[in-house]
Amino acid sequence: MRTQVGIIGAGPAGLLLSHLLHLAGIESVVLEARDRPYVEGRIRAGVLEQGTVDVLNQTGLGERMNREGLLHHGTTLRFRGRNHHIDFVDLTGKAVMVYGQHEVVKDIIAQRLKDGGNIQFEAADVSVHDVDGERPFILWRDKNGSPHKLDCDFIAGCDGFHGICRPAIPASIQQVYERVYPFGWLGILAKSKPVQEELIYNNHARGFALFSMRSPEITRLYLQCDPDEDIANWPDDRIWEELHKRLEGEDNLRLPEGPIFQKGVTPMRSFVAGPMRHGRLFLAGDAAHIVPPTGAKGMNLAVADVRYLSRALESFFRKNDSDRLAGYSDICMRRIWKAQRFSWWMTSLLHKFDERSAFENEVQLAELDYVVSSRAAMTSLAENYVGLPFEEQA
Amino acid sequence: MRTQVGIIGAGPAGLLLSHLLHLAGIESVVLEARDRPYVEGRIRAGVLEQGTVDVLNQTGLGERMNREGLLHHGTTLRFRGRNHHIDFVDLTGKAVMVYGQHEVVKDIIAQRLKDGGNIQFEAADVSVHDVDGERPFILWRDKNGSPHKLDCDFIAGCDGFHGICRPAIPASIQQVYERVYPFGWLGILAKSKPVQEELIYNNHARGFALFSMRSPEITRLYLQCDPDEDIANWPDDRIWEELHKRLEGEDNLRLPEGPIFQKGVTPMRSFVAGPMRHGRLFLAGDAAHIVPPTGAKGMNLAVADVRYLSRALESFFRKNDSDRLAGYSDICMRRIWKAQRFSWWMTSLLHKFDERSAFENEVQLAELDYVVSSRAAMTSLAENYVGLPFEEQA
Repeated sequence: MRTQVGIIGAGPAGLLLSHLLHLAGIESVVLEARDRPYVEGRIRAGVLEQGTVDVLNQTGLGERMNREGLLHHGTTLRFRGRNHHIDFVDLTGKAVMVYGQHEVVKDIIAQRLKDGGNIQFEAADVSVHDVDGERPFILWRDKNGSPHKLDCDFIAGCDGFHGICRPAIPASIQQVYERVYPFGWLGILAKSKPVQEELIYNNHARGFALFSMRSPEITRLYLQCDPDEDIANWPDDRIWEELHKRLEGEDNLRLPEGPIFQKGVTPMRSFVAGPMRHGRLFLAGDAAHIVPPTGAKGMNLAVADVRYLSRALESFFRKNDSDRLAGYSDICMRRIWKAQRFSWWMTSLLHKFDERSAFENEVQLAELDYVVSSRAAMTSLAENYVGLPFEEQA
Repeated sequence: MRTQVGIIGAGPAGLLLSHLLHLAGIESVVLEARDRPYVEGRIRAGVLEQGTVDVLNQTGLGERMNREGLLHHGTTLRFRGRNHHIDFVDLTGKAVMVYGQHEVVKDIIAQRLKDGGNIQFEAADVSVHDVDGERPFILWRDKNGSPHKLDCDFIAGCDGFHGICRPAIPASIQQVYERVYPFGWLGILAKSKPVQEELIYNNHARGFALFSMRSPEITRLYLQCDPDEDIANWPDDRIWEELHKRLEGEDNLRLPEGPIFQKGVTPMRSFVAGPMRHGRLFLAGDAAHIVPPTGAKGMNLAVADVRYLSRALESFFRKNDSDRLAGYSDICMRRIWKAQRFSWWMTSLLHKFDERSAFENEVQLAELDYVVSSRAAMTSLAENYVGLPFEEQA
């Protein structure tokens, strides 16, 4: 079998890349280790930047998102038990869309299949070869165990942090940057009417809490916890009790309780590997970088990566111009580092750090006080949250 | 002897307080351990916020400052060997004045003496008593060794970080916040024409450097160094060589060398002690808080403190209203913590930290990239640098 671009991974990065390439008249095959229900049910991020929404709308993927997604014009910072509203639209003219990543995945899969796209689920033993030569190829087995070889012009590694593509780049040419945080997030989904229409980022001496939602009936809540917290130690009653403690304040905000139907613990890290290219192998999304979820940047960065990559591949196939492919890693890295900085800053601003001194704790509160008292500082937060503008390639 | 307000320390805080009280018809006596030439020659900060300039102008102290000071409409951030201009006036409508703290001290001393003010230089063995009662007093010896007692209604501790007033507040009621940085500044004055009209804050892999000036003929330069660096290890040639290395870049910026006539090493710390009041003793300026010099906030905070304190004392003596005295520490602390945050942030943004990981070093550069590419972020830096507005007391 042969294709122009072999794509490994059917998360948002790989699927959207396949769709964008299709619109540009470029063939691809997507290989995904899991089955379709797993991929479509994998719950991850849920906040789309304005630029991500624009990409989806401009490429015909926005119909259900616009109907079912929740448009948020701002967010709330809560500290010392008081809410402070950050009005994105007033500050930046932009907004964000709350729409689960797995919903985006469903929408793109449906569109790809409608367009005759080739997505191979349950692809096993996937390996990449000769990526630094002219004729790279992928070996894999289908769900019946039959071996296949996929010859490609290029390979896109969209297979996430634990995928096989990043390790295919020699360690000698790739630099890794990492920070592991001394905490994780305990996240729950509850059948409980959201107490407020927008997110609440809550700083508290007991630890960070995030109030969020999936729909007008489903609340999504997170609690800062130990990174290796055992979820078995958190019966529902304890979760609600802790949430009430962290959100108590002079406004008597109180979450309505409801049945918890999903819970789990996620560790938090910042991670960047660069360059994102080796020969004819290009990394995109979580395969190259991870952000802590505080700034809601993970999926948005993946979308930005494949937006650049699809354009670079289009230049190559249409005009035999390799300049954009050569510049791919650099243009992505500039955006990635700004998003890393923002995600690190939001994480630092909002969480409890046991190792911090009394001075550093006061600086954190002073920064919160400053942010909500300065239009410039609020604008800075807002412009990062709704997404910095895309840098255009030469 | 008796006075309304006994002021300990003839730095900018104590002298300006004495002047502001005089204008409000309130008597004071200033006790200073050093002699007048020492106080007038003590070289410290040199960047006055717009609000500080306004206070000096509004109280008749601005004449020489306006003639000899250098008005700066912006500053430069330099990193990766390139200059990026931050235009304060465009961003905030305000500017800063470069005018040495010791010049301000000279101006206030001259004015106080002209107004018949009482400044006792070379006051020895100063101690404060009964500050938590109705009749506090100060014991001291004049330069001839004669003992004196100064009865006061209030005592203002403006005697700096190493003074005797802060320790007069019981440790049980005072909380201390501190950060000592793992570096200091090696500062020089050189007879060398400034290479640029405004300051250059320079981030470099070898360490921070600050280009500044005292006059159109005198350059003031700083190099990040070890906190316990021995100045004997830094002959003039080595200083110039290191400065050239840290400022090299694509624009070929090169400082003209000239005779170095002063040099020294300053350690760097952030420090806050609060509350700033105990009974009838009020702390102001460095007696209560120290900032690293990166944000040029030290003297400006002292001016803000005594501006609040003079108004609070005026309310007391004119209207027998103690509310502002009761609120003094809180209103000062809100400003102090915002300035602490800014000074800490500028320090973190610009210096080399040996303990930082590769990830943290990249975040620093990403933050610099972001700051100079975002009007909101530049405005946030600028509004802090020119000075946040004074909060007015109820």
